[in-house]
Amino acid sequence: MNDLRLHGLSPRCGRGTPLPRDAITDIGGIRVGHATVAEGARQTGVTVLSVHDGDAYRDKVPAGVAVINGFGKSVGLLQIEELGTLDTPIALTNTFSVGAIASAQIRQAVAANPAIGRGAPTLNPLVLECNDGVLNDIQAMALDDSHYAAALQARDAVFAQGAVGAGRGMVSFDLKGGIGSASRRAATAYGDYGVGALVLSNFGRLPQLRVAGQALAERLGATRPTSTPPEMGSIIMVLATDAPLDARQLTRLARRAGAGLARTGSVYGHGSGDIALAVSTAYTIPQDAARPMPGLAMLHESLLDPLFEAAAESVEQAIVRALWRAETVTGRDGQCRDAITARLPNWRALWPALC
Amino acid sequence: MNDLRLHGLSPRCGRGTPLPRDAITDIGGIRVGHATVAEGARQTGVTVLSVHDGDAYRDKVPAGVAVINGFGKSVGLLQIEELGTLDTPIALTNTFSVGAIASAQIRQAVAANPAIGRGAPTLNPLVLECNDGVLNDIQAMALDDSHYAAALQARDAVFAQGAVGAGRGMVSFDLKGGIGSASRRAATAYGDYGVGALVLSNFGRLPQLRVAGQALAERLGATRPTSTPPEMGSIIMVLATDAPLDARQLTRLARRAGAGLARTGSVYGHGSGDIALAVSTAYTIPQDAARPMPGLAMLHESLLDPLFEAAAESVEQAIVRALWRAETVTGRDGQCRDAITARLPNWRALWPALC
Amino acid sequence: MNDLRLHGLSPRCGRGTPLPRDAITDIGGIRVGHATVAEGARQTGVTVLSVHDGDAYRDKVPAGVAVINGFGKSVGLLQIEELGTLDTPIALTNTFSVGAIASAQIRQAVAANPAIGRGAPTLNPLVLECNDGVLNDIQAMALDDSHYAAALQARDAVFAQGAVGAGRGMVSFDLKGGIGSASRRAATAYGDYGVGALVLSNFGRLPQLRVAGQALAERLGATRPTSTPPEMGSIIMVLATDAPLDARQLTRLARRAGAGLARTGSVYGHGSGDIALAVSTAYTIPQDAARPMPGLAMLHESLLDPLFEAAAESVEQAIVRALWRAETVTGRDGQCRDAITARLPNWRALWPALC
Amino acid sequence: MNDLRLHGLSPRCGRGTPLPRDAITDIGGIRVGHATVAEGARQTGVTVLSVHDGDAYRDKVPAGVAVINGFGKSVGLLQIEELGTLDTPIALTNTFSVGAIASAQIRQAVAANPAIGRGAPTLNPLVLECNDGVLNDIQAMALDDSHYAAALQARDAVFAQGAVGAGRGMVSFDLKGGIGSASRRAATAYGDYGVGALVLSNFGRLPQLRVAGQALAERLGATRPTSTPPEMGSIIMVLATDAPLDARQLTRLARRAGAGLARTGSVYGHGSGDIALAVSTAYTIPQDAARPMPGLAMLHESLLDPLFEAAAESVEQAIVRALWRAETVTGRDGQCRDAITARLPNWRALWPALC
Repeated sequence: MNDLRLHGLSPRCGRGTPLPRDAITDIGGIRVGHATVAEGARQTGVTVLSVHDGDAYRDKVPAGVAVINGFGKSVGLLQIEELGTLDTPIALTNTFSVGAIASAQIRQAVAANPAIGRGAPTLNPLVLECNDGVLNDIQAMALDDSHYAAALQARDAVFAQGAVGAGRGMVSFDLKGGIGSASRRAATAYGDYGVGALVLSNFGRLPQLRVAGQALAERLGATRPTSTPPEMGSIIMVLATDAPLDARQLTRLARRAGAGLARTGSVYGHGSGDIALAVSTAYTIPQDAARPMPGLAMLHESLLDPLFEAAAESVEQAIVRALWRAETVTGRDGQCRDAITARLPNWRALWPALC
Repeated sequence: MNDLRLHGLSPRCGRGTPLPRDAITDIGGIRVGHATVAEGARQTGVTVLSVHDGDAYRDKVPAGVAVINGFGKSVGLLQIEELGTLDTPIALTNTFSVGAIASAQIRQAVAANPAIGRGAPTLNPLVLECNDGVLNDIQAMALDDSHYAAALQARDAVFAQGAVGAGRGMVSFDLKGGIGSASRRAATAYGDYGVGALVLSNFGRLPQLRVAGQALAERLGATRPTSTPPEMGSIIMVLATDAPLDARQLTRLARRAGAGLARTGSVYGHGSGDIALAVSTAYTIPQDAARPMPGLAMLHESLLDPLFEAAAESVEQAIVRALWRAETVTGRDGQCRDAITARLPNWRALWPALC
Repeated sequence: MNDLRLHGLSPRCGRGTPLPRDAITDIGGIRVGHATVAEGARQTGVTVLSVHDGDAYRDKVPAGVAVINGFGKSVGLLQIEELGTLDTPIALTNTFSVGAIASAQIRQAVAANPAIGRGAPTLNPLVLECNDGVLNDIQAMALDDSHYAAALQARDAVFAQGAVGAGRGMVSFDLKGGIGSASRRAATAYGDYGVGALVLSNFGRLPQLRVAGQALAERLGATRPTSTPPEMGSIIMVLATDAPLDARQLTRLARRAGAGLARTGSVYGHGSGDIALAVSTAYTIPQDAARPMPGLAMLHESLLDPLFEAAAESVEQAIVRALWRAETVTGRDGQCRDAITARLPNWRALWPALC
Repeated sequence: MNDLRLHGLSPRCGRGTPLPRDAITDIGGIRVGHATVAEGARQTGVTVLSVHDGDAYRDKVPAGVAVINGFGKSVGLLQIEELGTLDTPIALTNTFSVGAIASAQIRQAVAANPAIGRGAPTLNPLVLECNDGVLNDIQAMALDDSHYAAALQARDAVFAQGAVGAGRGMVSFDLKGGIGSASRRAATAYGDYGVGALVLSNFGRLPQLRVAGQALAERLGATRPTSTPPEMGSIIMVLATDAPLDARQLTRLARRAGAGLARTGSVYGHGSGDIALAVSTAYTIPQDAARPMPGLAMLHESLLDPLFEAAAESVEQAIVRALWRAETVTGRDGQCRDAITARLPNWRALWPALC
């Protein structure tokens, strides 16, 4: 656990207190796994996040969605907006592999629950995506069931960030982006909770970048002419809390991801599919109506502000961390995106606090 | 064209005037094609609807969405809600083939527009679905690119209805459902327009069924014990008009599909993904910002009522027609669903008007 | 109680079982009161529905909203959509009196809770409206705090329907409309619940009317030229259940009001503000975070279908009842709208079942 | 015009170029007027913004809404979300005066259009609000038609900011808030447009405040114990552009207000009604269907990014300006909130750029 903290310092965002791992796996039983493809023009992958170790279809996690900008091809959100629960682990991948990974989720769930689509309702695949077409030959559609299975298998509370899994080919602020995570404590008048974020960061142009309040474009010499057309961004923001929130409250929590995102410089660009999903690890909803529904009390609405602060700050921190954990990657057609730490070697002097 | 009318009479719904084909292909340049799989336990397929004969990505059709009940796995709606346009033809299929058909749409579009996902934005696949798992071995995931290509190839203004294409395995009111279509004239104070509907009808229990106002459960002897669990329904309702409506107005039009649906007996059941999509054939939006945007005047809001009437009635009629055009189908594990005309041979006497 | 049933028979809609009063006051502690103004050109009023006898601000009722057609001026829905609770009793009135009644609600609540707007959060007035401008001189803005107070004072489990309270001046299907109510039993696999509806019915043109499946335009001689412009309709539909549903589930329940509405002939006309609000009487949420949140288990999602059926049917029945309970009213400028029972004296022969 | 700039410098936010007045009145024919009440415990008012000098009901302005946090009591948004147009000038006031000002709007419009609510559809009042209950005796409900009329009468392209009109009693970041405005140029590949913002700023706690990226809590000695409970905030953000955008596009523009808001430190607090409304001055929609609909081409979607940048930055700047233009105000019960310039007299040295 400490490995994560020691080997990956980055500028610290905000005033909040990180939880021990400063990662979404601080929350409940969350685990994250990657399958990474890094072979020449193919720089892509899958990342899977599971909320508990049981069967996601039989014990459904409560969830809420915020579509901050809907230029995106993620699947599964429609049903979450209606029912407020997940059927599967959360999968992240590139835009053109959504179909393949959704099919993989179906096959995995049917193997575990043979009645799905027959006596039992069908499965709602949940695959969130960004377009990694700058570095990755996305048209190759290089992912299949084996990558989803590998990412599932690799899940752990300790996980790599940066240019791994679905983040392998992602670009953010014209720099190398990818997977980032963070967490914050949320202290309410009636008890403490935690909030964590995991982002797949693939948005932004360099002149917009603000890290912990500082604009960096000049320092980074925004000189490399960029070939990224404006429309090719996007960010997926997954939030988790151990507070007992219902789906409506989780929708409210998810919306606060937009505040953290804005602090890094985003204006929710036209072509950027900016999607947030929030889950609670405090309880599950049974698939089977014969099993008892949870009877726990939800958090009082007026206690949400510390969670909202923690959500916004975790997202901001996770975006920064995706940049700082990334390595420089060269992909298709000689396209290369630098790690920010390579472009800004003396970065430690610029920020008073790290984490 | 007359073939369609003569060989497929059904009870006539409502007070409106059908257009010549009484089908969605009365509107603009709409064409519909099917690929049908009917081999033992595999009773499924794909249906494709194109609005014009050009490239759907380069010349985008305006569209609006109404999620009447979001228990569904259709893909592509998120972006339509944001941008109000389609990138592809409209594909309909079974729930577990959504991923395969979405991938097929991507490959088809990339072949026609090689810059997609590289210099140009990615494609938003649009695949609408119902669960045909009662009659079809949906777990076989029997569809691939070849079926999408075949349906595209088969498109025509004259098209089959009932147990064909995506409708092959669908069940409605415990009877055989599937594809149905209808159209109505919408006369406004400032000109006449048309509205058409195409449905993929897979919802409803027999005791609920109302055809042109008449309940039929008793006549149909709702005696056959049904093995369909309540959650397995759904209906996709595609509306089209040649009136110049913008995306917001099309969203309003789409919502009226729910009125037509309710008249057949639906209460938008919990497990029924009831989704409506409305398009206008009056203009297109160019992908390329260098090309001129359309400058035509939209229809005045206060003239929409005749279109709303036509939309509701077209949907009601299309659902009835899906029942009447269907044939009895036997599929997986000996499951069989009868055509309503087989169970109600003297049906012509029950309704004063047919169409 | 039986008075209500005996003196007000109307055609029976649907297959469900009414609760004892066949009114929304069958649910929990709901009470309804009216203040009616019927003086020459002023034909209007206020109707108030309270869910429990406590303070609505301190013990908040869970609620969900469905905006079926948003051409309307109701206030308070924005915050209900966000927070899922009510702050006040539900008030219904005419379009131009919304401001006056909202101000009356504020004054009433501040009198009971002097910290409102100072140490405590402000109040969210909830006033739902239709335009009674055909019969009522709506420009006179004839209502004030005294009418709200009188309606509050008059609340009872037994209440008048038809041309009373907010329904005094309302017109439906070119006939006299107004207040109607109904209820139905909802039997689930794990227990029975009730659903009730109260409508303020002011929508529809005669040629559209369908009562329990029968079109009536011809029988009613749709000959009286109507001066109602198409845009002047609207209907408010309040649903209540004693099932433990959270705000998301109540939103789903509210949406089913649209199915009941459609069965009476509506296509959700452009100018008709068709708004549904659903509440649960099973629990309340405390204003004060120091008080415990409710810990009861919500109803399993898959058990909602009987409630959805009951909601649609209660709304359909309530609309019919508003017509049948109405008396003929003459208002401003000699405008007159007939009770349907006056135009169709032998109506009992037309429907097999009454209630 | 230059008066505005010279007498009211404030820290400059962002990288964009202000238009001449750096105010929302740079856009089209927008004019703003105030009526201010500043008498002892009554510190409140009304602000009115009109988009053109014609009749707002007869020539409707296109508009879109973004509800960033729906803890609010603004009226009129429901119908704007449905129809995408305004019926009235935009009014801002305190929470408890919404009813009075909505009634004033009705009377004003009926006087100008006597058929409203009779032969013509009713009017949709539009009154946006924040709770000024810290400084103002909001329970006094001190505003009426005369204040609305006075604000209408006072409209001008040059207008005061800070503690005036609806802003008189507002509090932001525990400092004196109120009315602020700004504008930015939006240069697209196919022409330049402008975007302006006007805010009614009443949100935020001092420890959150960030001005042009700088946190100020320490400098401002966040020591004064605050009596503001967390729930009493809110901000109204009105955006305007001269670009030809339809209602859907204006909704997208409105959503970007949330990015500007977040940059000042907001996380969209639970109790803060954060509402954005965006209008275009490029065209109007006639009330009368016999008049021609506008036939101009809308802006291509892919050109929106400069407008999104300008919207976010205008909102951020307008919030800062509301602080800087404010004067210290003492209101009810000795409550006092300082102008930031009083607490930070050497503020000019802290920011490199002013505007």
